[in-house]
Amino acid sequence: EDELEIAGVRFSSRLFLGTGKYEDMETMREALERSGTEMVTVAVRYMDLSGERSILQELDLSRYRLLPNTAGATTAEQAVKMARLAREATGTNWVKLEVIGDQKTLWPDTGATVEATKELVAEDFVVLPYTSTDLVAAIRLEEAGAATVMPLASPIGSGQGMPDWASISRIVERITVPVVVDAGLGVPSDAAFAMELGADAVLVNTAIARAGNPPQMAEAMKLGVRAGRLAYLAGRMPVSRYAVPSSPTRGVPAASES
Amino acid sequence: EDELEIAGVRFSSRLFLGTGKYEDMETMREALERSGTEMVTVAVRYMDLSGERSILQELDLSRYRLLPNTAGATTAEQAVKMARLAREATGTNWVKLEVIGDQKTLWPDTGATVEATKELVAEDFVVLPYTSTDLVAAIRLEEAGAATVMPLASPIGSGQGMPDWASISRIVERITVPVVVDAGLGVPSDAAFAMELGADAVLVNTAIARAGNPPQMAEAMKLGVRAGRLAYLAGRMPVSRYAVPSSPTRGVPAASES
Amino acid sequence: EDELEIAGVRFSSRLFLGTGKYEDMETMREALERSGTEMVTVAVRYMDLSGERSILQELDLSRYRLLPNTAGATTAEQAVKMARLAREATGTNWVKLEVIGDQKTLWPDTGATVEATKELVAEDFVVLPYTSTDLVAAIRLEEAGAATVMPLASPIGSGQGMPDWASISRIVERITVPVVVDAGLGVPSDAAFAMELGADAVLVNTAIARAGNPPQMAEAMKLGVRAGRLAYLAGRMPVSRYAVPSSPTRGVPAASES
Amino acid sequence: EDELEIAGVRFSSRLFLGTGKYEDMETMREALERSGTEMVTVAVRYMDLSGERSILQELDLSRYRLLPNTAGATTAEQAVKMARLAREATGTNWVKLEVIGDQKTLWPDTGATVEATKELVAEDFVVLPYTSTDLVAAIRLEEAGAATVMPLASPIGSGQGMPDWASISRIVERITVPVVVDAGLGVPSDAAFAMELGADAVLVNTAIARAGNPPQMAEAMKLGVRAGRLAYLAGRMPVSRYAVPSSPTRGVPAASES
Repeated sequence: EDELEIAGVRFSSRLFLGTGKYEDMETMREALERSGTEMVTVAVRYMDLSGERSILQELDLSRYRLLPNTAGATTAEQAVKMARLAREATGTNWVKLEVIGDQKTLWPDTGATVEATKELVAEDFVVLPYTSTDLVAAIRLEEAGAATVMPLASPIGSGQGMPDWASISRIVERITVPVVVDAGLGVPSDAAFAMELGADAVLVNTAIARAGNPPQMAEAMKLGVRAGRLAYLAGRMPVSRYAVPSSPTRGVPAASES
Repeated sequence: EDELEIAGVRFSSRLFLGTGKYEDMETMREALERSGTEMVTVAVRYMDLSGERSILQELDLSRYRLLPNTAGATTAEQAVKMARLAREATGTNWVKLEVIGDQKTLWPDTGATVEATKELVAEDFVVLPYTSTDLVAAIRLEEAGAATVMPLASPIGSGQGMPDWASISRIVERITVPVVVDAGLGVPSDAAFAMELGADAVLVNTAIARAGNPPQMAEAMKLGVRAGRLAYLAGRMPVSRYAVPSSPTRGVPAASES
Repeated sequence: EDELEIAGVRFSSRLFLGTGKYEDMETMREALERSGTEMVTVAVRYMDLSGERSILQELDLSRYRLLPNTAGATTAEQAVKMARLAREATGTNWVKLEVIGDQKTLWPDTGATVEATKELVAEDFVVLPYTSTDLVAAIRLEEAGAATVMPLASPIGSGQGMPDWASISRIVERITVPVVVDAGLGVPSDAAFAMELGADAVLVNTAIARAGNPPQMAEAMKLGVRAGRLAYLAGRMPVSRYAVPSSPTRGVPAASES
Repeated sequence: EDELEIAGVRFSSRLFLGTGKYEDMETMREALERSGTEMVTVAVRYMDLSGERSILQELDLSRYRLLPNTAGATTAEQAVKMARLAREATGTNWVKLEVIGDQKTLWPDTGATVEATKELVAEDFVVLPYTSTDLVAAIRLEEAGAATVMPLASPIGSGQGMPDWASISRIVERITVPVVVDAGLGVPSDAAFAMELGADAVLVNTAIARAGNPPQMAEAMKLGVRAGRLAYLAGRMPVSRYAVPSSPTRGVPAASES
């Protein structure tokens, strides 16, 4: 089967979901359900690690692998601490590593992210770092032991799609671990496009949570990801500058000559 | 249900397929099957209207509505004759009207297409005209009685996708009959994008027939069309210039403040 | 010299200007001056053909060739009448022909434009028709005797640039008379791009009249048009998928090897 | 006057030129002349630092400020050594810092570039670092004391233009020192576009050296840069979704109403 493998774990679904920004928990649960996802990310800051009504209790963790994320960290140290807290509280050693270097754009600080990746890998974490479209940063993350590389398509929550797709394509060509396109995807065609370029998976949050009908958009994203993946495996037609007739130029002459 | 209606006929699938360019009939049949299509177009020139081994005998016309097309016509007169021949031979009064004005790009002659539409509508044909992205040509076709308007995404068989999507969007906003994006779509993300813009259906031929694995690409296109349609119905997230955090900025402070 | 010739008249400047939307006449005159233009278009509707303070009296017609335009016409008949009025009032047989088919987008009605072109050519007008990016419409206009073809870059006054540049490129390749890109250009890079594709000239109005500083933008447009034209004549570098070093890979080894 | 200031030095021209890839020295000299540039970059590896027929002897250094570059360096150490060699040999403490992290794309290693910047700034160099479009890398370079930030438009020598212009725009908004767009620009419209976004200057090499007529393209680039700069200062028109008439809707009714 066409499964995705990350750190020895196999996934049938190539769509990962975030859990932020939903109007209510019921809508979130329904969206997760219809998306077919097998992994969801939750901000460590959003887990009420000591208390009662945590988002963690809203998730059926027998169905979804939990991927804590370090949203809100602005230094390697903060991110590392968040990852440790999450491991203690939830038992998972997986972490989506985010170290933000600019608040207006939520652009990642790739230098600090590489540093935190090294530290966390040394502590036996499975690290899935959020990064920019910078090729060499992606290479450094892979060298640091990242389990995947997760370049952004455009700023988090912006829905701008993937304007710098050429850089994503360069990363896909060069990186050996799975490439997960994260952030900025707005519609299923964006997700399909990422998969057609050869991305191994995508992570979507706002595009679903802030859609008019989140569960329906979740299903749309599921289909878009599958469409793009199937197309990648099938092999696309060549692009040509001019037209190429669909119909043979030979054929029954009676019609056109009469 | 979310069905498409053209001239009183209802379709569950919003993906129409062409039948040209397949390596063999078996591959074509399998691609049709996996695409879930309910309407296929066949060039009148490619029907051996008198003979034996016609492509028509290869198609299970109990499953697919037949849409003869006038590929190869360069004048309104030729196209009208082809449509009549097709009606006599196959019994259907539906026709995909193509009148080409330039051979290198297979660009439609919209003036001649409007003229042929009027003539064929007067003869009780159900006319689905292939046209350019020109807004006023689309309006004239609708005024002439076209059952749909079928603007090109890019030159036939080119696989360039839909660079002039802004014009497609203008047509979708303005035209009342179904808009079917036809020609030039190369990958499922192109098809999804067309549907997200509000197109009612898409027609695909070369992107499937010339894919590495046509039946698999046919399924990918089916999923892409559904993804785009569902997203359109669900309502997409707003696009913003800067980032919008997925995670709340409040939250457990212990982690990020420690 | 690299001059543009239209109907036997030679122009050194490949930038034509409109006269609408300026805050005042003084700003307009200064913008015309700094643009270096040699031809300006004035709406027939805006000429006070009987009266006193006409825009025509504001223009130094010894310096600029006057190009009356039929803005506001929605039928071939109206446009033809406007052209005749303009000829009577101003003495010029040149006309920028506009026949609009949709008010929201000011999209041209190419069918009516072809018809009016034929009529006006028969009456010895020099016809410069505004058209869409539709290739076959451009061909029909040339066949009808148009002195230039003037495809839009995007809707009039929208400043969206030239998203459907591929269609402009197809028109440039196929049409023999000068191609003047008209409408929608917003910045000098848009104008340069049109010229680099092989357009023979551009017409700009709103991008100058509605700039913060119209005379300065007029000069910027002049430079952009010249830049694009020179680049077209010089011949651009080839585009490559990967990087190509600017510096030789050989060279003094001392530095990099030490 | 509208001058650019870098490290206290003022430039009238906002176009910097490279010296690689020219067919011969005469063509290079003529291109420099017609470009109006005031600063040229030369690869340290290409300077024959000990010998006779160095490229340095081909340049009239009374007219152009020399900007040695560290092309070929793949580590911070190599780049620092090259900068020192260049200073010893030429007397200038300015350096265009390049540290490449991937040979196929010549993508910069931003981490190593930040490191080398710190080192060179500490040694009193004026450092103009080549970088990617990564926003936080640009911020780190500025913090490290870079005199400018020089993000790439696309891979060196590729001529792909500036597809990730949104990232360049983010850098321009956020960075205080001059932003010089470097690498990948292919035509004057690319250069104009960079300037319109607010870049302070551009650096061009291959687009001129590999044009059909390099001196003519050099002049085209000069005009493109000026056009873009003037437009930026003038303030562009607003972009609108629909059309906005250039001509007043009122006006002489006789023509259009008759």
